Parts: sequence; structure tokens; C-alpha cells
Amino acid sequence: MPGAIPASSSRLLDLVFPGDTNHHGTLFGGAGLALMDRIAFIAATRHGRVPFVTASVDRVDFQAPARVGELVELVARVSRVGRTSMTVEVEMVAEGLVSGERRLCTRGSFSMVAVPEGKTPGWCLPPLADMREPPGHGTCTSDIVFADQANSSGR
Amino acid sequence: MPGAIPASSSRLLDLVFPGDTNHHGTLFGGAGLALMDRIAFIAATRHGRVPFVTASVDRVDFQAPARVGELVELVARVSRVGRTSMTVEVEMVAEGLVSGERRLCTRGSFSMVAVPEGKTPGWCLPPLADMREPPGHGTCTSDIVFADQANSSGR
Amino acid sequence: MPGAIPASSSRLLDLVFPGDTNHHGTLFGGAGLALMDRIAFIAATRHGRVPFVTASVDRVDFQAPARVGELVELVARVSRVGRTSMTVEVEMVAEGLVSGERRLCTRGSFSMVAVPEGKTPGWCLPPLADMREPPGHGTCTSDIVFADQANSSGR
Amino acid sequence: MPGAIPASSSRLLDLVFPGDTNHHGTLFGGAGLALMDRIAFIAATRHGRVPFVTASVDRVDFQAPARVGELVELVARVSRVGRTSMTVEVEMVAEGLVSGERRLCTRGSFSMVAVPEGKTPGWCLPPLADMREPPGHGTCTSDIVFADQANSSGR
Amino acid sequence: MPGAIPASSSRLLDLVFPGDTNHHGTLFGGAGLALMDRIAFIAATRHGRVPFVTASVDRVDFQAPARVGELVELVARVSRVGRTSMTVEVEMVAEGLVSGERRLCTRGSFSMVAVPEGKTPGWCLPPLADMREPPGHGTCTSDIVFADQANSSGR
Amino acid sequence: MPGAIPASSSRLLDLVFPGDTNHHGTLFGGAGLALMDRIAFIAATRHGRVPFVTASVDRVDFQAPARVGELVELVARVSRVGRTSMTVEVEMVAEGLVSGERRLCTRGSFSMVAVPEGKTPGWCLPPLADMREPPGHGTCTSDIVFADQANSSGR
Ligand SMILES: CC(C)(COP(=O)(O)OP(=O)(O)OC[C@H]1O[C@@H](n2cnc3c(N)ncnc32)[C@H](O)[C@@H]1OP(=O)(O)O)[C@@H](O)C(=O)NCCC(=O)NCCS
Ligand SMILES: CC(C)(COP(=O)(O)OP(=O)(O)OC[C@H]1O[C@@H](n2cnc3c(N)ncnc32)[C@H](O)[C@@H]1OP(=O)(O)O)[C@@H](O)C(=O)NCCC(=O)NCCS
Ligand SMILES: CC(C)(COP(=O)(O)OP(=O)(O)OC[C@H]1O[C@@H](n2cnc3c(N)ncnc32)[C@H](O)[C@@H]1OP(=O)(O)O)[C@@H](O)C(=O)NCCC(=O)NCCS
Ligand SMILES: CC(C)(COP(=O)(O)OP(=O)(O)OC[C@H]1O[C@@H](n2cnc3c(N)ncnc32)[C@H](O)[C@@H]1OP(=O)(O)O)[C@@H](O)C(=O)NCCC(=O)NCCS
Repeated sequence: MPGAIPASSSRLLDLVFPGDTNHHGTLFGGAGLALMDRIAFIAATRHGRVPFVTASVDRVDFQAPARVGELVELVARVSRVGRTSMTVEVEMVAEGLVSGERRLCTRGSFSMVAVPEGKTPGWCLPPLADMREPPGHGTCTSDIVFADQANSSGR
Repeated sequence: MPGAIPASSSRLLDLVFPGDTNHHGTLFGGAGLALMDRIAFIAATRHGRVPFVTASVDRVDFQAPARVGELVELVARVSRVGRTSMTVEVEMVAEGLVSGERRLCTRGSFSMVAVPEGKTPGWCLPPLADMREPPGHGTCTSDIVFADQANSSGR
Repeated sequence: MPGAIPASSSRLLDLVFPGDTNHHGTLFGGAGLALMDRIAFIAATRHGRVPFVTASVDRVDFQAPARVGELVELVARVSRVGRTSMTVEVEMVAEGLVSGERRLCTRGSFSMVAVPEGKTPGWCLPPLADMREPPGHGTCTSDIVFADQANSSGR
Repeated sequence: MPGAIPASSSRLLDLVFPGDTNHHGTLFGGAGLALMDRIAFIAATRHGRVPFVTASVDRVDFQAPARVGELVELVARVSRVGRTSMTVEVEMVAEGLVSGERRLCTRGSFSMVAVPEGKTPGWCLPPLADMREPPGHGTCTSDIVFADQANSSGR
Repeated sequence: MPGAIPASSSRLLDLVFPGDTNHHGTLFGGAGLALMDRIAFIAATRHGRVPFVTASVDRVDFQAPARVGELVELVARVSRVGRTSMTVEVEMVAEGLVSGERRLCTRGSFSMVAVPEGKTPGWCLPPLADMREPPGHGTCTSDIVFADQANSSGR
Repeated sequence: MPGAIPASSSRLLDLVFPGDTNHHGTLFGGAGLALMDRIAFIAATRHGRVPFVTASVDRVDFQAPARVGELVELVARVSRVGRTSMTVEVEMVAEGLVSGERRLCTRGSFSMVAVPEGKTPGWCLPPLADMREPPGHGTCTSDIVFADQANSSGR
């Protein structure tokens, strides 16, 4: 029954609980960052199928608050694959459960680094799945930036 | 940017943390049930766009354990819409983050009841979105059970 | 000082905290289910004195909400003992801390399966403690349903 | 169905989860104290049927550790009732779920003070329920200490 | 007894609990980010004495992991004050509780924006307290960057 | 970069979240006790550099409540060092984030006992760092009580 999952995109859905909000009833930045890191971790691991750690947060912009009782949806997409690191773009959208209204809250970029166990020295991550051309027959192709990402404004 | 969401299906992704597991390192039934209820609540509210409460759990079968460090993916689908209640089918699949191996853990059925505020007495829930025929031009169509659900064995 | 405990009945008391409630201030179904599973697990393990996992939830009815600031009391009673499985009936009652008013919130039935370590193949659970007649001198007596349970209406 | 509860004694059962234990796998003192305060609060409120706050911890002795995977049972008993304050004695016992072995872990004494809303100035708490003689026909009887408590050594 | 606190520097100490760590026993990036945001929020609010929200994370580098059972110490320092926004630099240091060994884990920079209630339109944040010269006699001085910060490499 | 820390004094800062407060919005005694125990544990371990367990709470007085949204600051100071036990004095101060107003909430005294692994039988804790005279050239000096502590009223 469990079908195929697109390896490089992951989605996380959660409710905003009162324990994670300030006295205005809006989500703490830290709670949003923790969710973003979690989905970045999941997306990276699903792509690389080795354990990962977060190496850096490149930039996160909080454009609009998420409110208590709302739904937050986080989407992560691997945008760059290096030898053992990758870049994961994460967006968080809030959705009013009753209104259905959705707004982009936050956008950020996380660098994740593989910490494989028992891999040979020359080991490297598999390249991005949706590549148009095969990346040199399995040889390591570090830090390929794809045209469609490079063009995306503001990153 | 935030696009259209299919109103009657919802997906939740989470990691199994040590705090939710027994001494065998497998997820407590209660933690699984809490996740299942959460996604059923989200699916119901997204369909009805009113607040909901859980009215009953019809049956949940735990077929395989989810382990610490694994990913769990929960999918909820509205299968029956009544006047103010609906039935939501929920499945939980575990995925080994490194192996990528997936197995169905749990399947269950939840009844959710709308508790709308300030609705007129005759108010009822919108029918299932993917219905083949319109349900009587907006009149209430309570407890429609669709053929494909009725046929599914073991529910 | 610690005295004898009746092995087949267990009681859990907890406060309803804001973190477990929806925007109406009532306990989420999932939080109630997690508490019910916990007391079912405790009751099963106290009876069998081996580790258990939850195999299924047979049916849970949520009759009344529990509110933030209230006390919830959960009582679990082993009602059927099989070879390696047992059925545990669970009730959750809410109590207004100041009013003292109590109301039955939820009733459910959980199947728990023993996962003993290093037991011989023919191993089976001890029969219910309050049995009127000894169950065949220690031989396994699977799926005995006792008259007084079978009679209890609505189960 | 919900029957009468002895107002001045309360019992709480919980599992020791890994999130509350140190690297030896034993419950942190703070987690034990939080459970003791919770049951003292419940016992006080059930006796007084007004909101309470913790005014002091008189002494808590941790005699034996509770381990991850064990059950902890907390029992609270109101031992002294003053005008607006009361003393609650709390004991915590750990129970090995598989071994069934029980040991007293901790014993302590908490002072709880009523913070009633909208009560008249002369208001006072009801006296202890199990008193042998009626306490002066409803007049306030502050700081009654009962013989059997006063005699208990080490308090 | 409570004495004067240096308004623009804040310190937070916490233990790394198993619930916040991955299967290697090291702190999840998200848990570290949540702690960093919390101390940045505290430092900003203590400086401005109005409510704040997190507007952006400028860059966070995770140089070394923090392990379960270790202590983490977070220090926040306001480095730039604008009209309604400020920049807070945060460092997280891990300390082995038994070894006493300390290592810098993470360094980051957070932009916090004041969301004051009922302030007049021209309202602005007080300038940095430890300034050598007064910033124009109480008039708004937006985006002052101090020499010692501008010099710090890599920011 | 990580500098020297005074070994016998530790400071913990936290926000009061709604999940830890009663219906008056004030911190539960148990949540306060858990924070006090945590900082006592940290202070003891930093002094002794061996693992510790809480042996007793000698007395805690809750003089004023801490409110949701406020900051709590906990300070721990080792006041007595025995052979394997020590006494840690803890104070908790609440601070209004916007008002800046501070008030002493709670004061308490904790006994912590070292549980070192693989230490020789005659092993004992290092004496207090700020002692005026050296404690007998490294020999064990159990239960030294210093004049300035002995004089402090009410302890
Ligand atoms: C941050 C926020 C209040 C800014 O609102 P805005 O209408 O864009 O604000 P303005 O354009 O009036 O700018 C106000 C200040 O914020 C600063 N600012 C705005 N967006 C910023 C960003 N992304 N990063 C850094 N600073 C920012 C501006 O530079 C300006 O600074 P100044 O007053 O010192 O000159 C708004 O975007 C918001 O509410 N975001 C969500 C915050 C949140 O909920 N965080 C947690 C999410 S989990
Ligand atoms: C429950 C589980 C151990 C059963 O394993 P299994 O190989 O199917 O077990 P068996 O067929 O040998 O049956 C063992 C007993 O379990 C009972 N059982 C099995 N599946 C059951 C179910 N879904 N509902 C109720 N009882 C069940 C059988 O009737 C049998 O009872 P008996 O010994 O009293 O006659 C297994 O399905 C499992 O591990 N499930 C996951 C449990 C879990 O992790 N729960 C929490 C998830 S969040
Ligand atoms: C605390 C504990 C280690 C003491 O063990 P013990 O065998 O009684 O220890 P000893 O008699 O050898 O005494 C060791 C030291 O502890 C001190 N001590 C023992 N019990 C104590 C108590 N209740 N209060 C204060 N100090 C105590 C002794 O005075 C002695 O001090 P010294 O070495 O400075 O002279 C033991 O009781 C224990 O493990 N308790 C549970 C701790 C725990 O798990 N806490 C959290 C529970 S939620
Ligand atoms: C407890 C508290 C309500 C007492 O207020 P107060 O103005 O000192 O009260 P009063 O002097 O009128 O005394 C009222 C009763 O409390 C008792 N009391 C007061 N302080 C006490 C203390 N520290 N320990 C034990 N009892 C105490 C008094 O003896 C009196 O008892 P009685 O009515 O039975 O005769 C107040 O100190 C408070 O709010 N403390 C904070 C409580 C809290 O928030 N706890 C959790 C913190 S994390």
C-alpha cells in the first residue's frame, strides 16, 4: 500500500498549540525554526539516506505571524547537493482552519551535512533526482547548482 | 504562492522521538492515537471549515510498530459525510530514514462532529468534494456512504 | 509500607492543561486517547508482568468533553484474558475541581498483546485474578469471557 | 456511574518516561517534585473546593530512585486544615512493571493556601472530613492537628 | 534583594534532555534554534521593554554538537538598535557537566522587531545603553552600528 | 572564547509559558520546583564535577507568584560541602518583561548527593572554592558550615 515518495520534497503539517505562542497568541520564532529544521532534516535524510546534522541556517525571514489554532504547513525542497552537504529551502504557510485563508509566513534556507557511518573515504551524496542529465555516471558531483534554482530571485 | 489544497485529504509527517517510545524503542499506542486524531481533526476541519470534536474511534488496528528515529506519515481521508458528522479514515506508515523502507503500521476510523458557532438550525456539512453527482443542489444529504468505501473489507 | 495492589484494576489522575486543549478549552480527542492507552498499558502489564504493546482499539466513545483546569480520572479493568492478548476496558471521568461535579466523558476498549522476552513457546498469560473457579490448574485458558462481563450492557 | 470519592485522599499513577530521567536512567528530583505538587494540589482542591496555590514545601526526602520504564504512584493525604491553609502529606512509590516490586521513593509535606474568589472575609476551609467530633457546628476551626498525625515520627 | 541587571545582555542555561536529541545523542538543530530565539527575545524585550517578534535569522553556524546530559549556555547581546528593530547576537556554548570542558557550538544573529501597543507614531526604541556618547538627546537614532561590532569578522 | 565560570554559582533564565500555569495564569508550584531542582543540580555538578542526585528539599517558601509571559531567573549557590553531599540555596525571581519590575518569588534549600562512578572509597568532594583558608591540604573536610551562611536568618 505505501507508495513511492518523491525523495527530494517533504511536507509537514501541524497545529499551533497555545504552549508555543506568545501573549499575542502568535507562534514564537523559535517554534517556527524548530519545525523548519525538522522538515529540512527529513528532506535531507530522505534524499541522502544517511544521517544528517544541521550545519547552518543561511537566512530565515518571518513575513507574517502564525496564530494559535491555525494550521501550519511546511514544505522542504532540496535545491543544491554537494559532496556531503546539501541546501534545503523551507517555506511555512499558515492556514486558518475555519476560514481556509492561507498566507506565507516564513521562508528559509538550511545547510545540512551528512554524517554517514562506515562509508568509504570517497563517498558522496547522490545528485538531485530531477536532474535532466545523469551526473557523470555515479562519480561525485559536488556543489552543482541547477539553472532553475539559480534563477529564483532573492535566494 | 500557497496553492489549492485538496480539501478532503491531509498528510502529516513526524519523527518518532525517544520521549514517545517504550523500553523497546517503539512508539506507544497512545502517541500513535494522538497523531491519528490530530490528522483526522485537520482533515475534518478542512472539509467542513467549522470547529470539530472527536465523537468516537470506530476501530484502530496496530499491525506493526514504529521505531525511534523513524519517520511516521499519517494520511487522512474523509470517507463519509453526514449532517454534522463525518467519518475520517486514517493510515499511519513508518519509514526508515536511512533504509527508506516503508511499512503500514496502523489503520483506523474516526467520527468527527461539527460544533459550529452561530449557524442556523438547518445547517449541515458540505458533501464530499469528489462526488460524481451533485447531492441534491445544496440540500442536506446526510449519511451518504459511497460504494467504494462500503466495499472495503474489514472496516 | 507499599501494600498490595489489586492487579487487574488501575487508576490514573491528571489535570487538563491548556497545551492539550483546543480553542474551546476542551481536551483534544488525541490527548484523551493517549491517557486511555497509558492506563490500559499499565493495567495489562500489572496483570501479566511482561511487556505489552497495544494491538487494537476496539471502540472509544467520547460522550462529554473534559475542560481545561478540570481533573480527569481514568480507570482500567482487565475484562478478558487470552493466550497472549487481553482486553482492557477504560473509562475517563472529568471532575470540576471546584464544583466537584463529575461526568463520564469517554469509554473504550483496548486489546493489549504480550511481547515477553525469553519465554518458552507454550507460555501464556495468567488468567483473571477474580475468577470463581481455578482455570484448569495452570494450563493455558485462552479467551475465557466471564459471565459478569458478557452481561454488561453495551460492550 | 461516577461514584463518591474520599475527598481528602488522592492517588496519581504515571510512567517514568526517558525525557524525565538523567543519564543513569533515574527520575530527576524536579520531575518527582512536580508530580508531588500536582497531587498535593488535587488533594487540597478536592477537600476545599476552591482554587489553591502552593505556599511552601516543608521537607521532601528522596530515599530511593525511580527508574525509566517504572510506574510511579503518588498518594496525597490532607493532614492539617487551618483557616485558609492546609498541610498535605505526599508519598511516591515506584513499581517495577514486570517485577511488580515496589519501594518507597519519596515522602514530603506541602502547605497549600486557598485563594477563593468572591468569598466573604470570615470564610474558612471545611475541617477534615474524617474528624471524630463535629468541629463546632460550622465555625472556623483553624490548625487542628490530629493525634495520629502528631504521633507519626519524623514529620 | 533582586538587583540591577545589565539590560542588554542575557544568559540562559539549560540541560540537553534526550527528548531533544537525535539517535547520535546530539541536540537537534531545531532545539538549538529555539533556545537561541528565546534568549534573543528576552534580550530584546529587556532592552526595549515592549513586546517583540522575531523578524529574521540572519545567519546561524553550528560549529560543534551539544550532547545529551551536557549543559548549554546561551548568551545574547544587543549589537544594533534601529527605529523599531534591533539585532541580537547569540552564542551557544556546551559544557560537559563532569569534565567541565566547554566548546563553542553555535553563533547566530537575530533581527527582532518591536510591536508596541498604544505607542505614538514617532515612537522609537531606546539606544544601546552602553554607548559612549548620548545619541542625540533622546531623539530617534536608527540603525547605529558601533565600531566594535562592525569590526567583528565574519558577521 | 568560552571563559571561566565561577564554579559555585549558576543562573538559569526562562519564560513562563501557558502550559505551566494554572487558570489564574500563575506558575504551578511544581513547575517552579522543577526549575529550582534543575539549577541546584547544575550548581552541584559544576562544583563537584561528578554526577549528583537530589537527596532532599529542606524547605521552599513561595512568597509571590510568577505570571505567564514573565521571565523567571533562578540563582543557585553552594552553601555547604560535606563528604559526598552539599547544600545548594536557590532563589527564583520573576521579572515583568515590559515593566522590568522584579520580585522575589521563592527561596529554597536542596541537598544534593554525589554518585561518582569508579571513585576510591575515601573519595570526597572538593571544598567550597571561596574558602578563606585551605581545608587541610586536600583531606576530606566534611560538613563545614561557614560563618556567613550560619548567620543568614531564616535558613
Ligand atoms: C516583522 C514584522 C512585524 C515587520 O512588519 P513590517 O510591516 O514589514 O514592518 P516595517 O516595514 O514597518 O518595518 C519595521 C522594522 O522592521 C524591520 N524589518 C521588517 N522586516 C524585516 C526582516 N525580514 N528582517 C529584518 N528586519 C525587518 C524594518 O527594517 C524596520 O526596522 P526599523 O524600524 O528599525 O527601521 C512582520 O513582518 C511580522 O509580523 N512578521 C512575523 C513575525 C513572527 O511572527 N515571527 C515568528 C514566526 S514563527
Ligand atoms: C500486536 C502484534 C504484536 C500482534 O502480532 P501477531 O504476529 O499478529 O500476533 P499473533 O497472530 O501471534 O497473535 C498474538 C495475539 O495477539 C492477538 N492479536 C493480533 N492482532 C490483533 C489485533 N489487531 N487486535 C486484537 N488482537 C490482536 C491475537 O488474537 C493473539 O491473541 P491470543 O494470543 O490471546 O490468542 C503485532 O501486530 C504488532 O507488533 N503490532 C504493533 C503494536 C504497536 O506497536 N502498537 C503501537 C503502535 S503506535
Ligand atoms: C541520596 C542517596 C544517594 C543517599 O544514599 P545513602 O546510602 O543514604 O547515602 P549515605 O548514607 O552513604 O550518605 C551519603 C551522603 O548523603 C547524605 N544524605 C543521605 N540521605 C540524605 C537526605 N535524605 N537528605 C540529605 N542528605 C542525605 C548523607 O548525609 C551523606 O552526606 P556526606 O557524605 O556529606 O556525609 C539515596 O538515598 C538515593 O539514591 N535517593 C534517591 C535520589 C533520587 O533519585 N532523587 C530523585 C527522586 S525523584
Ligand atoms: C501563599 C500566599 C497566597 C500567602 O499569602 P499571604 O498574604 O502571606 O497570606 P496570609 O498571611 O493572609 O496567610 C494566609 C494563610 O497562608 C498561610 N501561609 C502564608 N505563607 C505561608 C508559607 N510560606 N508557608 C505555609 N503557609 C503559609 C498562613 O499561615 C495562613 O494560613 P491560615 O489561613 O490557615 O491561618 C502568597 O504568599 C502567595 O501568593 N505565594 C505564591 C504562591 C505561588 O504562586 N506558588 C507557586 C510558585 S511557583
